[in-house]
Amino acid sequence: MTVLVFLDSAFPDGRPADAGVPQLMINDLGVTRGDGIFESLLAVDSVPRKPDAHLDRLASSAQLLELDIPPREAWERAIATALALHAEAEADDAGHAGRAAVKLVVTRGVEGAAAPTAWVQVTVAPDAAAQREAGIKVLLLDRGYDSLSAARAPWLLLGAKTLSYAVNMAALRYARQHGADDAIFTSSDGKVLEGPTSTVVLARERNGVRTLLTPERRSGILAGTTQDALFKAAEAAGWELGYGPLVPEDLFAADGVWLVSSIRLLVPVRSIDGRELPFSAALNSELARLADAAL
Amino acid sequence: MTVLVFLDSAFPDGRPADAGVPQLMINDLGVTRGDGIFESLLAVDSVPRKPDAHLDRLASSAQLLELDIPPREAWERAIATALALHAEAEADDAGHAGRAAVKLVVTRGVEGAAAPTAWVQVTVAPDAAAQREAGIKVLLLDRGYDSLSAARAPWLLLGAKTLSYAVNMAALRYARQHGADDAIFTSSDGKVLEGPTSTVVLARERNGVRTLLTPERRSGILAGTTQDALFKAAEAAGWELGYGPLVPEDLFAADGVWLVSSIRLLVPVRSIDGRELPFSAALNSELARLADAAL
Repeated sequence: MTVLVFLDSAFPDGRPADAGVPQLMINDLGVTRGDGIFESLLAVDSVPRKPDAHLDRLASSAQLLELDIPPREAWERAIATALALHAEAEADDAGHAGRAAVKLVVTRGVEGAAAPTAWVQVTVAPDAAAQREAGIKVLLLDRGYDSLSAARAPWLLLGAKTLSYAVNMAALRYARQHGADDAIFTSSDGKVLEGPTSTVVLARERNGVRTLLTPERRSGILAGTTQDALFKAAEAAGWELGYGPLVPEDLFAADGVWLVSSIRLLVPVRSIDGRELPFSAALNSELARLADAAL
Repeated sequence: MTVLVFLDSAFPDGRPADAGVPQLMINDLGVTRGDGIFESLLAVDSVPRKPDAHLDRLASSAQLLELDIPPREAWERAIATALALHAEAEADDAGHAGRAAVKLVVTRGVEGAAAPTAWVQVTVAPDAAAQREAGIKVLLLDRGYDSLSAARAPWLLLGAKTLSYAVNMAALRYARQHGADDAIFTSSDGKVLEGPTSTVVLARERNGVRTLLTPERRSGILAGTTQDALFKAAEAAGWELGYGPLVPEDLFAADGVWLVSSIRLLVPVRSIDGRELPFSAALNSELARLADAAL
């Protein structure tokens, strides 16, 4: 089932509502203009994973959009309320609610109204275990922007997780229609950016030194919360860390490439544009364990 | 008042609904992903202006997004229903309903459902007469894309009028915070593109030849329905027409620049980046009359 809890200053713990009936006004700027932001996080047995990182990024997206959003404590309480309701509905005999996808959404509100619309939605998480094990095929797709756009043009909202995801969805459709499962965006000046819904991570071993790399954030990509947690855990386990400018050749020369995100976690990329990548099941398991322990 | 009519195959003339209460599901892809398209058109005394051009462009946007939308006749009937309801509520003693803004919206529908969500919304049109007379100040803002992106990368959805308008809204906020009223986007390779919600048109007279110009569509801009109507009327009145690649210097060298759109119509640009532009009240009235007669 889908649990829905609105953030509402009259309800300190959030206002539960029926997700099975219409709840949004037709002229909410979230739908008429894609004018809002969101986060997706994982909860395991009703415990949210890295909520602080997600609430930090929500605040950062809000700042980029100049959106006045409810305070952190209101989110924490609404998330707790939603997860409790979800557990009531979904928990097994031992009281385990399993893996849930928690979505936080804030829109600029109804046209002409001064208040944002904000809610928490909880659903059973989609099962991505097969993809995490078998891996996926990916296409490189041009994102159109050069890697310096973010610094030059703040109105492009690069680095904000907005509701205006039509291009991300179109890129996924294009990839699927062309024999792949997912995409990696590149900048118009040839740098590796990110997936439509994930962060790119690559591993390489040179002369006994093991390094995890990800594209530099100033290229206008989202700050990956799962990539960040993985990097911290890997560093503690002896890995070196690197923040690119990365080009496609770096992906092909790596010992492994992953698309990393909060719900699907670490998915190994087995081919890019039809060209096979190195893959080690042992390395895949090692990084998955590191990330899992860190979250 | 706001009139709302859903397109619904069970209701050939559309299904009227109360716009004052929530009507959209929380997990409609229109709000969660900005995944949908729209049109805004003017109606005067319940007669829609250039409905065919708007329905053509809606179909073209749908094709770019691979969105299966209701047939044209369903839109025409729903628009007629909505305008009749609006006239009932708003008409004066002489039966005139005045100027109304008609919005057509289609989203990819509720997550997991196969059907789009589609509706027609009618409100009283905002009064832009003062802007049409006095003109506006504009900033040039980089859109990040180069002018060849549209041809190279169809997944960028350039040329589609999508619900993912967060960047357009951010550009308008940026312009207003920096002493202007509106913006004109430029490409990363320095070409003039379009306004966040309008088409750019410029007029120039050289050796007795009067020409209207607008940026070329293949640069990834929306096909302007009002610009197109104006151009046809102007051609019949003896103007030459041109479709640029245009650069900012062309704007400064023109005899007049306008932002053109369906509801606000022709708004003269009085300055760009603080630099004053030539302005002729006579030319402004002449073009406004041409457009008005054509619509």
